[in-house]
Amino acid sequence: MPDTATHRIFNFSAGPCTLPLPVLERARDELVDYGGTGMSLIEMSHRSMPVVSVFDEAEALMREALSVPASHHILFIAGGATFQFAMTAVNLLHGGKTADFTHSGAWAKKAIADARKVGRVNLVFDGTDANYTTLPDPAGVACSDDAVYLHLTSNETIGGVQWKAFPRVGRPIVADMSSDILSRPLPFEQFGLIYAGAQKNIGPAGVAVVILREDVLAQCPGDLPGYLNYAGHVEGQSMLNTPPVFQVYMIKLVLEWLKEQGGVAWAQEAAARRSEAVYDAIARHADFYRCPVDERCRSSMNVVFRLPDEDLEARFIREAEAAGMSGLKGHRSVGGCRASLYNAMPLEGAEALASFMDRFATTHG
Amino acid sequence: MPDTATHRIFNFSAGPCTLPLPVLERARDELVDYGGTGMSLIEMSHRSMPVVSVFDEAEALMREALSVPASHHILFIAGGATFQFAMTAVNLLHGGKTADFTHSGAWAKKAIADARKVGRVNLVFDGTDANYTTLPDPAGVACSDDAVYLHLTSNETIGGVQWKAFPRVGRPIVADMSSDILSRPLPFEQFGLIYAGAQKNIGPAGVAVVILREDVLAQCPGDLPGYLNYAGHVEGQSMLNTPPVFQVYMIKLVLEWLKEQGGVAWAQEAAARRSEAVYDAIARHADFYRCPVDERCRSSMNVVFRLPDEDLEARFIREAEAAGMSGLKGHRSVGGCRASLYNAMPLEGAEALASFMDRFATTHG
Repeated sequence: MPDTATHRIFNFSAGPCTLPLPVLERARDELVDYGGTGMSLIEMSHRSMPVVSVFDEAEALMREALSVPASHHILFIAGGATFQFAMTAVNLLHGGKTADFTHSGAWAKKAIADARKVGRVNLVFDGTDANYTTLPDPAGVACSDDAVYLHLTSNETIGGVQWKAFPRVGRPIVADMSSDILSRPLPFEQFGLIYAGAQKNIGPAGVAVVILREDVLAQCPGDLPGYLNYAGHVEGQSMLNTPPVFQVYMIKLVLEWLKEQGGVAWAQEAAARRSEAVYDAIARHADFYRCPVDERCRSSMNVVFRLPDEDLEARFIREAEAAGMSGLKGHRSVGGCRASLYNAMPLEGAEALASFMDRFATTHG
Repeated sequence: MPDTATHRIFNFSAGPCTLPLPVLERARDELVDYGGTGMSLIEMSHRSMPVVSVFDEAEALMREALSVPASHHILFIAGGATFQFAMTAVNLLHGGKTADFTHSGAWAKKAIADARKVGRVNLVFDGTDANYTTLPDPAGVACSDDAVYLHLTSNETIGGVQWKAFPRVGRPIVADMSSDILSRPLPFEQFGLIYAGAQKNIGPAGVAVVILREDVLAQCPGDLPGYLNYAGHVEGQSMLNTPPVFQVYMIKLVLEWLKEQGGVAWAQEAAARRSEAVYDAIARHADFYRCPVDERCRSSMNVVFRLPDEDLEARFIREAEAAGMSGLKGHRSVGGCRASLYNAMPLEGAEALASFMDRFATTHG
């Protein structure tokens, strides 16, 4: 290998996760002297033209990528989805209001716990007894009379379940889309508020994208401390305070890269091909690999699977690592294996994993 | 200039601001392939060894730099000081408790506004009538009987005032030290909670450092939404959720650089020399430049000054920019000029500015 080639492995981590190599290379090249200004972008005032331009472009590219209608604001807010669990609760459930939640797994559980500290929660679906391996038929989800919104987690990274369509319930859906945003088109008329930690399909960790409809914004109380108030972030155009400039810059680069690939239509097709490569390998060796997830709602982002025993799982993960494929260990709370296949994972990565799975099953099956 | 030399200007921005050039260069060199792992640090799971090591080292270096005693936890929390205005209020003033505040300027005002939304605020000092050009004698600050803490803003970036010593008031001080932390030793026995947005002396924007005493932590309520609860961040060792890995990595590099320079003792001496160079230039041309700030509390970080009229100020800023010195415009709320002289500003920068001020005064005075 020549000295100039970048050493690069296939990184199947659930997030933070692989980023597009051209994005990392451009960030590297621009890091010390941004556009001949004699300083780094991260050294500039956030009120300076170069930084304001980056924010404007990131927002415009996000709006274009997902065809976000003018009814919805797009915000970048430091703190990730975990902060949004708190922020949605204090903005939307203040005064003890009620919301309906779908309990689909580990991430829904966290959103529910925070909502219960502020308002009232009805569970309209509870996947606990099924060990979070399935989701309800969207057509069968009915809301409580007093629910001001329906919350769902569009994709559960730990359980590997994904909503393939969304309920129509006559009130806004509030959705945690951290792990599958930008992987498919979205019916925005159904959504009042979407939030997503950046560190899967959007950019580096440390920021969330929030897409918020005007009428939902109007329900938020005015007397919250400043940073907790969505209205302040809208008014400040994601610069209510000094924002995480590096992350928003990286988001802009990722969205430019996504556009070059063919946008969300490309991402949806690519996600299907990557995940099918791995699900097909599981199916080819059904006596060896097992995916516990209901076929109707298997995630195109996080493919979870088990091997016949934990020793084989440990060996599989170890030998895959040695073969240049990292991050295949399942979440510590559930064990097993997991291949996270976000937008920046090349198809070659999924195919290499599928071939490795073939060989491993043949050797050890 | 050879092709390989970095084009570099003197950046006097108030924050985000200049970072040490060796830190930027190292971040650039490590950005695509971190330590031969075949991926970027910002692509790795935050539970992976390299990321956990970065966090451990950043915390240890911060503890060493400031001699933080074992009684105080050190946290990195995404969101900056503006989020800490809200977070300190909901943690420390829940149930309508009372705190004493010193109203020293624009940043104190924001902390006060958030505190008033949660609890009761007494102003033990109000600099409004003096247009925030002075601070009280620390020995003369007395707290209210019912105040659970005293809040102060150690340095006001807009007004250019800085506490040179801290009151002893028999209860914990809670301090916003965003703009002068790491520029001098601190008497931790007086402080219950210190918070600081990173983007001046610590690293890039998007994270705050919080230094929190055990007995103050014990007063925080347990029923807050997760991200708002200091206890969760302490328990999670700054990884309650997916943290802003890039910022904490940069903090580690900045702290390593600071240690190489000679630590906080060096920083204090360097800050004095830089700011004296500029204050001396003002004094040399007292008929031309004017610093409105009380001499007892002139900031060593942000030197604010006026010229005879606004036309001359605009010309000063424009000609300085052309001479390779940027960011000298005062905050839009107050006008005038401001030179921010944080740890990463070389003495040569302050000296170049002082020489420019001499020439400009001679030409236009």
